[in-house]
Amino acid sequence: MKTFNDILDTAKAKGPCRCVVAQAADESVLLAMEEARRGGIADPILVGSRAEIEEIAGKLALDLSEYKIVEPRSKAEAAAEAVRVISRGEGDVLVKGMIPSADLLHAVLDKEAGLGRGRILSHVGVFLVPGSERFTKKFILLTDAALAISPTLPQKAEIVQNAFDVAHRLGIESPIAAILCALETVNPSMPATMDAACLAKMAERGQITGGQVEGPLALDNAVSEEAARHKGIHSPLAGRADILVAPDIEAANILYKSLIFFAGAVEAGIVVGAKVPIVLTSRADSARNKLYSIALGSLVR
Amino acid sequence: MKTFNDILDTAKAKGPCRCVVAQAADESVLLAMEEARRGGIADPILVGSRAEIEEIAGKLALDLSEYKIVEPRSKAEAAAEAVRVISRGEGDVLVKGMIPSADLLHAVLDKEAGLGRGRILSHVGVFLVPGSERFTKKFILLTDAALAISPTLPQKAEIVQNAFDVAHRLGIESPIAAILCALETVNPSMPATMDAACLAKMAERGQITGGQVEGPLALDNAVSEEAARHKGIHSPLAGRADILVAPDIEAANILYKSLIFFAGAVEAGIVVGAKVPIVLTSRADSARNKLYSIALGSLVR
Repeated sequence: MKTFNDILDTAKAKGPCRCVVAQAADESVLLAMEEARRGGIADPILVGSRAEIEEIAGKLALDLSEYKIVEPRSKAEAAAEAVRVISRGEGDVLVKGMIPSADLLHAVLDKEAGLGRGRILSHVGVFLVPGSERFTKKFILLTDAALAISPTLPQKAEIVQNAFDVAHRLGIESPIAAILCALETVNPSMPATMDAACLAKMAERGQITGGQVEGPLALDNAVSEEAARHKGIHSPLAGRADILVAPDIEAANILYKSLIFFAGAVEAGIVVGAKVPIVLTSRADSARNKLYSIALGSLVR
Repeated sequence: MKTFNDILDTAKAKGPCRCVVAQAADESVLLAMEEARRGGIADPILVGSRAEIEEIAGKLALDLSEYKIVEPRSKAEAAAEAVRVISRGEGDVLVKGMIPSADLLHAVLDKEAGLGRGRILSHVGVFLVPGSERFTKKFILLTDAALAISPTLPQKAEIVQNAFDVAHRLGIESPIAAILCALETVNPSMPATMDAACLAKMAERGQITGGQVEGPLALDNAVSEEAARHKGIHSPLAGRADILVAPDIEAANILYKSLIFFAGAVEAGIVVGAKVPIVLTSRADSARNKLYSIALGSLVR
């Protein structure tokens, strides 16, 4: 897969995924689900008050006859109800509706009724950067710009593993993860560089599987073979990253927004690590971006 | 000033600055100084072995008759000798030649013979981002991508102050600094957001002067008023940043390289906080980038 249209086509060919929307009484979420449904990507299950959902659908002139609606006992129960639908085997992808992300993730991580499988949940962004043809013509994945604030070494290993899982579903058979730091040497006064060295070795020793890991790398020598050569980095992986692993949420989030706002990148995002993928689109996301994220969820399910 | 040509013109109008090059026996440094000299921006003073400098100049067919050469007692003395030239009042800008940055900064920060003035040294990058016309048509400054690894709150305040000083020399009378975080709310589990709130208040209270400070802000609502409105941020400063202050060296360096490698930005960089500005260009920098950095040094002197 080379483009977002490839992702849409692959999701469509796979058949509509059962998207369970937690608290669906929201215009922008309903519009996104309708577009995904019409595109053959989603078979939506709307969790929320039927009266409220129908009122909004009425305003949007949406026909809900193809939609399944599940009413929770109360508004506060919407996230837990959506999780139950999935636990019963009736849903493939969880979609955040009109509730705070924290509430949805709380229900997902509930020890008894939740969807956890003992691995950290992490966010993976999938980007196409217009200017990046100079370096590469492929998807670039970035993690974790949304969930893990300051991950420990074992958490970073799981974050890499989660990203490998997404990369495989995009057809990247042996993805290369670059562990980003401020520079490419191990520096005891920069703990991120020591974590990076450990993660690279963990992949060599089979403690992380499904791809290759290189680090510490600065961003330039992660994505540009020329920059890596210039720095005298002798590694067959340097400059060839499929996945950029940031040291913490600040670096990841700032890079994420830099790619979108300064580099004009197109993006889809997803949370992985639970039993099903989770789509956490926000109101600020474009309709196109939401559709891509739902399609990505379908591929990763 | 709106473009890098404006910076070159202003530096030229100001008259050549006396650039003291620590360890000048290096092709790329000599070429950069020659271009700056011909452009009327620099009046170079080369510190290093005369024999070595002349040998390289010969290969490059450079006429050194307009250059002053100062020989240190030994190679290891080059940085200290360059600092002494400036301490004697014979130089305006310190330029790194063929020595490690750490060695140069060590000489600059020497308690007795150095050029410190009790303020943190910090790196300020000045960017023009091609795609950023959507948001702004101005220089964007970014700090600190090179020196302070994990600055404390008081250090961050000095870093902001240093950046304000640079902004003023670029004609930005009341610069706005955005303290970047992963989000725009104060979150006790993200210390960077608490530092950001403190820095904003410190500027309100006159503990930081010469500009305005807003934070915490995510990158999108730092540079885009539309994004700030979308997030419901009620601040006359949000979306209008002249200066981006990253929480640590990783976030700053990754953003720095993202702007250059993904967004195609043009950049000049300088270290401020000492008695004179310091130009730390590296071999990987383009000739144009080096010239802009020297001109920036001339403006900031």
